[in-house]
Amino acid sequence: MAIKLGPNEYGKAQVHLVRVYRDTARHEIRDLTVSTSLRGNFSAAHIEGDQGDVLPTDTQKNTVFSFAKEKGIDSPEQFALELADHFLATSPVADGARVEVEEAAWKRIDVDGEGHDHAFVQTGGGTRTTVVNVDGRGSERTAHVVSGLKDLVVLKSTGSEFHGFLKDRYTTLQETDDRILATSLITRWRYEGTDVDWNKSFDAIKALLLQRFAEIHSKALQQSLYGMGEAVLEQFQDVAEIKFSAPNKHHFLVDLSPFGVDNPNEVFYAADRPYGLIEATVLRDDASDAGNAWHAIPGFC
Amino acid sequence: MAIKLGPNEYGKAQVHLVRVYRDTARHEIRDLTVSTSLRGNFSAAHIEGDQGDVLPTDTQKNTVFSFAKEKGIDSPEQFALELADHFLATSPVADGARVEVEEAAWKRIDVDGEGHDHAFVQTGGGTRTTVVNVDGRGSERTAHVVSGLKDLVVLKSTGSEFHGFLKDRYTTLQETDDRILATSLITRWRYEGTDVDWNKSFDAIKALLLQRFAEIHSKALQQSLYGMGEAVLEQFQDVAEIKFSAPNKHHFLVDLSPFGVDNPNEVFYAADRPYGLIEATVLRDDASDAGNAWHAIPGFC
Amino acid sequence: MAIKLGPNEYGKAQVHLVRVYRDTARHEIRDLTVSTSLRGNFSAAHIEGDQGDVLPTDTQKNTVFSFAKEKGIDSPEQFALELADHFLATSPVADGARVEVEEAAWKRIDVDGEGHDHAFVQTGGGTRTTVVNVDGRGSERTAHVVSGLKDLVVLKSTGSEFHGFLKDRYTTLQETDDRILATSLITRWRYEGTDVDWNKSFDAIKALLLQRFAEIHSKALQQSLYGMGEAVLEQFQDVAEIKFSAPNKHHFLVDLSPFGVDNPNEVFYAADRPYGLIEATVLRDDASDAGNAWHAIPGFC
Amino acid sequence: MAIKLGPNEYGKAQVHLVRVYRDTARHEIRDLTVSTSLRGNFSAAHIEGDQGDVLPTDTQKNTVFSFAKEKGIDSPEQFALELADHFLATSPVADGARVEVEEAAWKRIDVDGEGHDHAFVQTGGGTRTTVVNVDGRGSERTAHVVSGLKDLVVLKSTGSEFHGFLKDRYTTLQETDDRILATSLITRWRYEGTDVDWNKSFDAIKALLLQRFAEIHSKALQQSLYGMGEAVLEQFQDVAEIKFSAPNKHHFLVDLSPFGVDNPNEVFYAADRPYGLIEATVLRDDASDAGNAWHAIPGFC
Repeated sequence: MAIKLGPNEYGKAQVHLVRVYRDTARHEIRDLTVSTSLRGNFSAAHIEGDQGDVLPTDTQKNTVFSFAKEKGIDSPEQFALELADHFLATSPVADGARVEVEEAAWKRIDVDGEGHDHAFVQTGGGTRTTVVNVDGRGSERTAHVVSGLKDLVVLKSTGSEFHGFLKDRYTTLQETDDRILATSLITRWRYEGTDVDWNKSFDAIKALLLQRFAEIHSKALQQSLYGMGEAVLEQFQDVAEIKFSAPNKHHFLVDLSPFGVDNPNEVFYAADRPYGLIEATVLRDDASDAGNAWHAIPGFC
Repeated sequence: MAIKLGPNEYGKAQVHLVRVYRDTARHEIRDLTVSTSLRGNFSAAHIEGDQGDVLPTDTQKNTVFSFAKEKGIDSPEQFALELADHFLATSPVADGARVEVEEAAWKRIDVDGEGHDHAFVQTGGGTRTTVVNVDGRGSERTAHVVSGLKDLVVLKSTGSEFHGFLKDRYTTLQETDDRILATSLITRWRYEGTDVDWNKSFDAIKALLLQRFAEIHSKALQQSLYGMGEAVLEQFQDVAEIKFSAPNKHHFLVDLSPFGVDNPNEVFYAADRPYGLIEATVLRDDASDAGNAWHAIPGFC
Repeated sequence: MAIKLGPNEYGKAQVHLVRVYRDTARHEIRDLTVSTSLRGNFSAAHIEGDQGDVLPTDTQKNTVFSFAKEKGIDSPEQFALELADHFLATSPVADGARVEVEEAAWKRIDVDGEGHDHAFVQTGGGTRTTVVNVDGRGSERTAHVVSGLKDLVVLKSTGSEFHGFLKDRYTTLQETDDRILATSLITRWRYEGTDVDWNKSFDAIKALLLQRFAEIHSKALQQSLYGMGEAVLEQFQDVAEIKFSAPNKHHFLVDLSPFGVDNPNEVFYAADRPYGLIEATVLRDDASDAGNAWHAIPGFC
Repeated sequence: MAIKLGPNEYGKAQVHLVRVYRDTARHEIRDLTVSTSLRGNFSAAHIEGDQGDVLPTDTQKNTVFSFAKEKGIDSPEQFALELADHFLATSPVADGARVEVEEAAWKRIDVDGEGHDHAFVQTGGGTRTTVVNVDGRGSERTAHVVSGLKDLVVLKSTGSEFHGFLKDRYTTLQETDDRILATSLITRWRYEGTDVDWNKSFDAIKALLLQRFAEIHSKALQQSLYGMGEAVLEQFQDVAEIKFSAPNKHHFLVDLSPFGVDNPNEVFYAADRPYGLIEATVLRDDASDAGNAWHAIPGFC
């Protein structure tokens, strides 16, 4: 019996940078948190402590900052692809690179009905994400882009049912044909190829996901997610598959009858834990092989 | 020498409720997290373990939920005032009540250019807060309302200097006439009286704070805060004072010169800790006595 | 009507330092997170943007690091007092300084039954804290030390009752003579003077608080807290008063009867929110005036 | 082109329960947070909104609570295996079940040198975890147990080097032969089979991991992790593989020379972000196929 090194990966996590575009008095900003990592045959580092093949995580961090100026940030996806290719070119023993980006959203502060030139307020409504995995170089190179959203908190105050479910001796839940449906959505979609208008695609997919969440009369969170994913695949031919991880943020109707007060679906207790957790994938029959596209992406089945 | 009970307070913290208004097909929602507490002569509970004077925190929670239906939620301030008065009426030995509310902001999901009737997405851009303190009953009653905002994250990409500061042997900071200024603002303002259009006042003060942050050419975060507070006091006669707690979210210019790359205020490292913390009060000369208005409000000098 | 600057304060928050003592092969470490601030007449900075009186927070940070070597860290209290006095000596317009310290606890890693010389594992069981406030200089100087603990999570599986409480129309809580009592304790005690063996005193007070929590048959969390505080005041003459902020971490007995399963106080649901919050002060009749001892300490009534 | 449902999973996350054993006056407690989920052919729920195959997450929660009494909690692993088998027996269309458990550690409060019968204080030093995946039933059944630790924060104040690494034009890091090495370890190991003394095995593996971290003179975090994993595999024949996810918690030596103060590896700034992140697997040559053992475990490559 022998012991050996298995899958391994290393890099710099959460380099938080703000890039200011100040070519005119009307500034633009991009606010990215970038994590980079390399994988491959790093046995010498693990087994003998020999760092000759290891590009330090400190150097990876420096590169992220410098590329923000050298290459600029047109989109998280483009930026991540440039970094991944660079790290593979620099690190001979690496066979794959992963770059993950989260982008905080800002809008201009309103002054007398107009957006200010260089003052911004951070907005919520979901964080844009991307994970890029590149394997190999030159003619062997394959690149995967998985973009998405996290912390997109949505709620329907009606138009949601839940009944007809499987029952056993531990079932106490009452069936309902009118409840609150709410979730803090994490979703990621895999693109076919990299010839995409990343910013335009992101905006359109986000808008469509919200619209379908609103429109679908829900018989369960599963059904809402499937319908949202189906719409994305129907309208975006360059999306191969889409995954959802959706906590069911329970809103329990409060029983006010002990106080002689009626509560016709008006007052709810918003609970924290435990919560339902629904995860689902919607994909095309003819989607390309995902390869390493979903490599080390947490929280998705 | 004798040992005795000093200041004490008890209540239910963080009752998270969602109130749906569904009188028409176009629903409205309010999403509040409410904390209530009572103070007064609760010596028997502490010293003898006698609960005869103690209205359980569980009952306080029930009341919050029931009032959401019975009284409705026109504003966090009105709701908090009704609860505080109720608890003082119910608890004979209490001499003061405190109710704290945080309101999560939601907007309608856009479907074909129109807001949906019953589907919502949570927005960021600062959380609305209020703390109400009521002391006494009947002719002895005094009520204080301190409203505010937290997690209002703002940034200026220029228009901020910092120089001419005091130096000692531990000073290494370079002076600058152009830096990023950013903070995650907590602010609270104290109203004179309670005859206020709470929702309208909140919206207008928030807008003014943002506008002034944008407009003021800053020589330090202190100066920005003072100017923001001054504007609020000038325009809102029913505001007696305003307090700020503002972390200076440092954005350090990255030195790219080792890589032969120029960085004319374009690429910044957004640091987490340590951070500067600036706290300031702006008030009227003739402001009324604050009494218990700021009682047990954390994080303000 | 004029507008003016009220109470204000500024400093550097959360300087996280690790100090290694390596005079022998058997290293010692101290792991402190330090926040410093100054208060006084900083009107020029706020109103005119003149920084001539402002010792930058960056300099405060540098000083914290340098003092860790120059003065050493015998205890959080001694370290905080040295910093506060230094900042007052350096900043002419400051009239008060506040230094807050949290210390993470580490113990030696066990190797073959002995603690290793230079390898450590972080432990839980409560974080040691101190807040030092110094006002004035020379013969006018007054210094206050408030030390304590946070995140001390304790639980009694029996020996806790709750009954005989005040009831109103919103009361649904059942009385009980046997429940779980649990809290995540924050406590702070004010010392009379500064001639104290800080480390010995801390260890002894922590042990006594735990012991009394265990021993007291509780009729309410209030009663447990009072008894714990009373014991500290009885045994530690240099403690003037002690404050507690104690969330009642509710453990609800789960009703298993629908499944034909008996549950005689054996299976509990540990809830997050809402929670009861009990705050209390126990003090000596003849305690000295607290002055600024509790200045800007959050979360205590 | 057709659109279809891909991998999916649903369940109840984070059921927090405390189980009290009170058969004698000397109570025992177990504090578990349990997440359960089912996977299989749930197309009807997703595509048609038909819940006939769906055992509600509410029922899963009820079952967790009831099993804490019916089956008892001898170890997280045994409890998770019983739940997984039960859910597969109850849900006809499920083909796999996953149960994840985190256990909070408590110890008896010391009173006069002895542990109290029913009063406990929570300790730190790492949280015990397990993830159980069961696929199929009866003769088709396969069960995988992956146990581990998270939040195990360890530090070496010397005995750690980092030099000889790959350099490129973005390298600025200085080589060092003496630095602080610190991490907040997450580790998980996969057992061969389920005939294991779970509690004894956990305690021994934890102790060994700590010991090896202490003993190994480290040329990089990678090398420490590999050595820790190798030791576990050498001494525990029923462990097939072990994975690590280890943030390199950077401790930067502070330059005190501007203040004329020497700093021979004594004062360090403990940074938060960015951080290095090292992930590695150590496994046996002849380890069994992992099957679904690592299914949906976040944060491991």
